[in-house]
Amino acid sequence: MISKEGKDMKPFVVNFSDIGIDFKGNHIVRKYNDIKHIFKTTDPTLERENPVIYEVFEGPIQEKEGELMFLITILYPGTVNGEFFMTKGHYHTVENTAEVYLGLRGKGLILCQTKKGEFEAVEIGPNKVVYIPPFWAHRTVNISDEPLIFFAVYPAHAGHDYETVEKEGFKKRIFRGDNGILFVEQ
Amino acid sequence: MISKEGKDMKPFVVNFSDIGIDFKGNHIVRKYNDIKHIFKTTDPTLERENPVIYEVFEGPIQEKEGELMFLITILYPGTVNGEFFMTKGHYHTVENTAEVYLGLRGKGLILCQTKKGEFEAVEIGPNKVVYIPPFWAHRTVNISDEPLIFFAVYPAHAGHDYETVEKEGFKKRIFRGDNGILFVEQ
Repeated sequence: MISKEGKDMKPFVVNFSDIGIDFKGNHIVRKYNDIKHIFKTTDPTLERENPVIYEVFEGPIQEKEGELMFLITILYPGTVNGEFFMTKGHYHTVENTAEVYLGLRGKGLILCQTKKGEFEAVEIGPNKVVYIPPFWAHRTVNISDEPLIFFAVYPAHAGHDYETVEKEGFKKRIFRGDNGILFVEQ
Repeated sequence: MISKEGKDMKPFVVNFSDIGIDFKGNHIVRKYNDIKHIFKTTDPTLERENPVIYEVFEGPIQEKEGELMFLITILYPGTVNGEFFMTKGHYHTVENTAEVYLGLRGKGLILCQTKKGEFEAVEIGPNKVVYIPPFWAHRTVNISDEPLIFFAVYPAHAGHDYETVEKEGFKKRIFRGDNGILFVEQ
């Protein structure tokens, strides 16, 4: 049996599919109005319709050292006046903790940056594993016309520091261009 | 650029496919004669032909705290007189460290046990995520007729304690039965 409290946790398996992910942990849903401040502009139609921008299905893992959180994120396609849908992005509160992504469906970019000002954009998609080293903030951008779905693993005690990203933003924003994507300095 | 020494490690992506995994790290190959002692019986034909039982493709990750190792294992199908091909199995040397598996192809069992004598067998395959909590040894068994391929993530400083498993074995062995699989007490 699975104890979310982790007291008698035993090895377990959970199943997922494109239709019915059942990871038995938290299900986090971010709608447009929850996160509209992260985009450069606003869109009154999106404000009115308030679509889901992304959702996260977590495993039933306690947030303590030694455990590993795993999750699947579905980031839907779309733009806010040309700026691709994206996640809030965060540093880990416990900064010396890495994260590993494995792409399942769709195509996106992981934007990464450090507090020292380094910036990298790395492609994610099926058959791709992205490594985010310790100390790098990360935000995902869906640059395709289908849902971007990826699996992620990180130390369960890492925590999420959203505030630093809210204050400082990421160095670059990703817009749809006439012949692909555009990197726009924020 | 990727520095295997991790000195200036930046976020990076690696690609895999069934044909050409290129994870840019260690490639570990276990042939029959390397691991024949883990099976209940021996097979002279396998000794002569010495096939690869499994191989592991690791990411280019330094084995230090804060980093996460990722890898893909291919465990080939077959038996030693009916006992399914399997991995050596190990505890983590740093015992309070978990591991997450994601099945990609094929079908197998993860045998798990603790030093207190608990034992669990958990199924792995496509669309399945297996969680191995801290303190649980783990061994993978291919119970299908095709290669079992899975992705795994664990803290890079965890280390491998093979010795305890060599001495004590796993509580159960998995054989091909007339109508499926047989669990045999060792």
